[in-house]
Amino acid sequence: MPTRAAESKDHVYKILDLVGSSEKSIEDAIQNALARAAKTIRDMKWFEVMQTRGDIENGAVRHYQVTLRVGFTLEG
Amino acid sequence: MPTRAAESKDHVYKILDLVGSSEKSIEDAIQNALARAAKTIRDMKWFEVMQTRGDIENGAVRHYQVTLRVGFTLEG
Amino acid sequence: MPTRAAESKDHVYKILDLVGSSEKSIEDAIQNALARAAKTIRDMKWFEVMQTRGDIENGAVRHYQVTLRVGFTLEG
Amino acid sequence: MPTRAAESKDHVYKILDLVGSSEKSIEDAIQNALARAAKTIRDMKWFEVMQTRGDIENGAVRHYQVTLRVGFTLEG
Amino acid sequence: MPTRAAESKDHVYKILDLVGSSEKSIEDAIQNALARAAKTIRDMKWFEVMQTRGDIENGAVRHYQVTLRVGFTLEG
Amino acid sequence: MPTRAAESKDHVYKILDLVGSSEKSIEDAIQNALARAAKTIRDMKWFEVMQTRGDIENGAVRHYQVTLRVGFTLEG
Amino acid sequence: MPTRAAESKDHVYKILDLVGSSEKSIEDAIQNALARAAKTIRDMKWFEVMQTRGDIENGAVRHYQVTLRVGFTLEG
Amino acid sequence: MPTRAAESKDHVYKILDLVGSSEKSIEDAIQNALARAAKTIRDMKWFEVMQTRGDIENGAVRHYQVTLRVGFTLEG
Amino acid sequence: MPTRAAESKDHVYKILDLVGSSEKSIEDAIQNALARAAKTIRDMKWFEVMQTRGDIENGAVRHYQVTLRVGFTLEG
Amino acid sequence: MPTRAAESKDHVYKILDLVGSSEKSIEDAIQNALARAAKTIRDMKWFEVMQTRGDIENGAVRHYQVTLRVGFTLEG
Amino acid sequence: MPTRAAESKDHVYKILDLVGSSEKSIEDAIQNALARAAKTIRDMKWFEVMQTRGDIENGAVRHYQVTLRVGFTLEG
Amino acid sequence: MPTRAAESKDHVYKILDLVGSSEKSIEDAIQNALARAAKTIRDMKWFEVMQTRGDIENGAVRHYQVTLRVGFTLEG
Repeated sequence: MPTRAAESKDHVYKILDLVGSSEKSIEDAIQNALARAAKTIRDMKWFEVMQTRGDIENGAVRHYQVTLRVGFTLEG
Repeated sequence: MPTRAAESKDHVYKILDLVGSSEKSIEDAIQNALARAAKTIRDMKWFEVMQTRGDIENGAVRHYQVTLRVGFTLEG
Repeated sequence: MPTRAAESKDHVYKILDLVGSSEKSIEDAIQNALARAAKTIRDMKWFEVMQTRGDIENGAVRHYQVTLRVGFTLEG
Repeated sequence: MPTRAAESKDHVYKILDLVGSSEKSIEDAIQNALARAAKTIRDMKWFEVMQTRGDIENGAVRHYQVTLRVGFTLEG
Repeated sequence: MPTRAAESKDHVYKILDLVGSSEKSIEDAIQNALARAAKTIRDMKWFEVMQTRGDIENGAVRHYQVTLRVGFTLEG
Repeated sequence: MPTRAAESKDHVYKILDLVGSSEKSIEDAIQNALARAAKTIRDMKWFEVMQTRGDIENGAVRHYQVTLRVGFTLEG
Repeated sequence: MPTRAAESKDHVYKILDLVGSSEKSIEDAIQNALARAAKTIRDMKWFEVMQTRGDIENGAVRHYQVTLRVGFTLEG
Repeated sequence: MPTRAAESKDHVYKILDLVGSSEKSIEDAIQNALARAAKTIRDMKWFEVMQTRGDIENGAVRHYQVTLRVGFTLEG
Repeated sequence: MPTRAAESKDHVYKILDLVGSSEKSIEDAIQNALARAAKTIRDMKWFEVMQTRGDIENGAVRHYQVTLRVGFTLEG
Repeated sequence: MPTRAAESKDHVYKILDLVGSSEKSIEDAIQNALARAAKTIRDMKWFEVMQTRGDIENGAVRHYQVTLRVGFTLEG
Repeated sequence: MPTRAAESKDHVYKILDLVGSSEKSIEDAIQNALARAAKTIRDMKWFEVMQTRGDIENGAVRHYQVTLRVGFTLEG
Repeated sequence: MPTRAAESKDHVYKILDLVGSSEKSIEDAIQNALARAAKTIRDMKWFEVMQTRGDIENGAVRHYQVTLRVGFTLEG
């Protein structure tokens, strides 16, 4: 993954593991997880999808469930 | 994995590996695989995406091919 | 894998993936899965534990859920 | 992963990694980790065993040490 | 994975895990597993070798044992 | 992997690793990577998704970044 | 891995891979492997479970077979 | 994993994932991550390097970026 | 990896991923891939088998398909 | 793993990692490794192929190099 | 890993696998690989360490050999 | 793996797993492990780093602990 050349200091990032879910799509499950995490975490920088799962009802997908690793900056 | 707290007995689940394909999207390939499996399997409960692939024609995706693990209940 | 030196022919084995669950222990979840599978499959030979999970209720384990691969002989 | 069909909203879960230890058994190490985590975290839903280790004293197991991933609900 | 550009519909494939064995070679163990599976499964399309093992007798290989994943078409 | 039964010779394929990105979706990131690669590579046959990541801005996905392995035929 | 802060020198450890078996439990298979290894190896410090398997007889577990990595101190 | 034989109780540890960066070396990136985490976490016991990456500027390493798992004691 | 003690400089190697196929054997598929690559690459030094697959026709192997990583020297 | 139902005691096995090489074939490299190990180890029971590599000379395989895990019985 | 939010278009990156070696250190092996690659590739952006190995002479490290994945921008 | 084209026979290598530690650096931990092993093993040829860990004291690295696989020649 591309990394930001313009940053000038030795940063430290923390990684948070989340599961987002959505009835619509994998992308929507990712967005839901990030939107919820953004309520308490500022400065989220990147994510990686670790696992994509879902539950099934009547032979169709009911929810997509996406496990994410999210990196965010630890302030000073 | 099933994690439903409300279930009262020690269930046993069987896992089936499927590849679904679709010209449209990853989600559609998942739904196609589940729809086909639902013709012969009742009580599918969850799935996990194991691999996402596809074939290419004229420099573009022709089919998405998604390998799923699907869990379903073994009746008593 | 079967490694029995005394067998005289080139056998073929099939592998089945199961999830057993138990409120008591990991070993009991394995035994439950095998007991259920033995209703329809003869000649199961070996298993391998692929994943150990569980669901939680009131801060304690409610069920252990063990994913097994089970090998059994395909008759002639 | 949570797969409860009866849940009506798009939930977000957070994952916590813990190591529990016990002199008695693997199951007891899991229970110790969950009991300790339950002091500060409500609504733990599922766990997955990531690694099972231990330390040895006088040629016997002194502690089992089990690394768990634990999922819990992030409130609204 | 099947990648045949000439196929016109959204196919679904099922995956079967087998162990074939042979006293002669790895390739022969693969062929034995496929020959046995072909008795009951039509339309096998591809395989992947997951593991190569064997048992030893008097310091030499007695059987090669090859674990395969085999994909075949689910009819209509 | 290519599995086309109709091909008559022992082909050799080369594998290329790419990262495509898109603000819209995972599928669009895949298509962007393939469209760019098609400028210089003929005869791309299949791809496999190796990793799905992204960068985050203001608590939402800014780009999806999908790492692909792409196989193409080496001529004669 | 050894993490004992109180140790004053740069130690070197050797790792030994063992399979212990037991008819009773996973923990008992671990203890059997360690007890046997303790006959010839002093100063075993830690273990890690690499694989849990077993053989099946009449549809039930006959032996649990646990593969361990064991670390021990290399003297001076 | 902590393997200290001298500890008398069944401890529980929490695991934290961090990324440290440094223009100088891999070891310095590890030290930077730990120094930053030590501002808020007491009793860190061990770490494991999960990934070593970096960004490149003008054909040379600009920062090493090391992903760590850090274990620390959860107080009673 | 190259491990030749007699080499006097700090070499740099490039890695190429190839898929060779053969109707005859796994070894022949490896040789086909190397022979094709040797047309344009000098100084190939080592290979590693990453995956062994194949396609099936009429219940038998039609082609073995072996994915290789090949290392070769980058000239000065 | 050994899975012999006829064995009456709780055995302990030791695992040895070897690399065998051969100019002829993968199977021959396995046999060479076992033949050499049999000079000092009695009662080898099973092996697993962990990695298949080789060195290249003049664009062709010079040696196949196969990494094996070999299990053997620890006497009483 | 942190990813660059400031980039305005949907970029495509290519990934190159390299092995760098050095008699001095792991970091020096990385720098050697990048310096050599920079002779023909502009716009390298990031790397990831995939494997760290080395050859041994007279019981000491002779060369560190570090396998890198390097990402660089594909121009428009 | 050894890839020395100049060797004339089909060699067999044995693999040894070690953990070296050092207060100074990762490279020093590797050298310490090799120096200790060289007391009893001649003809060590190559190593691979399997894991890099460490213990922490007062918020800083106390020891780096590096797990190595070491290959050495088995004499005739």
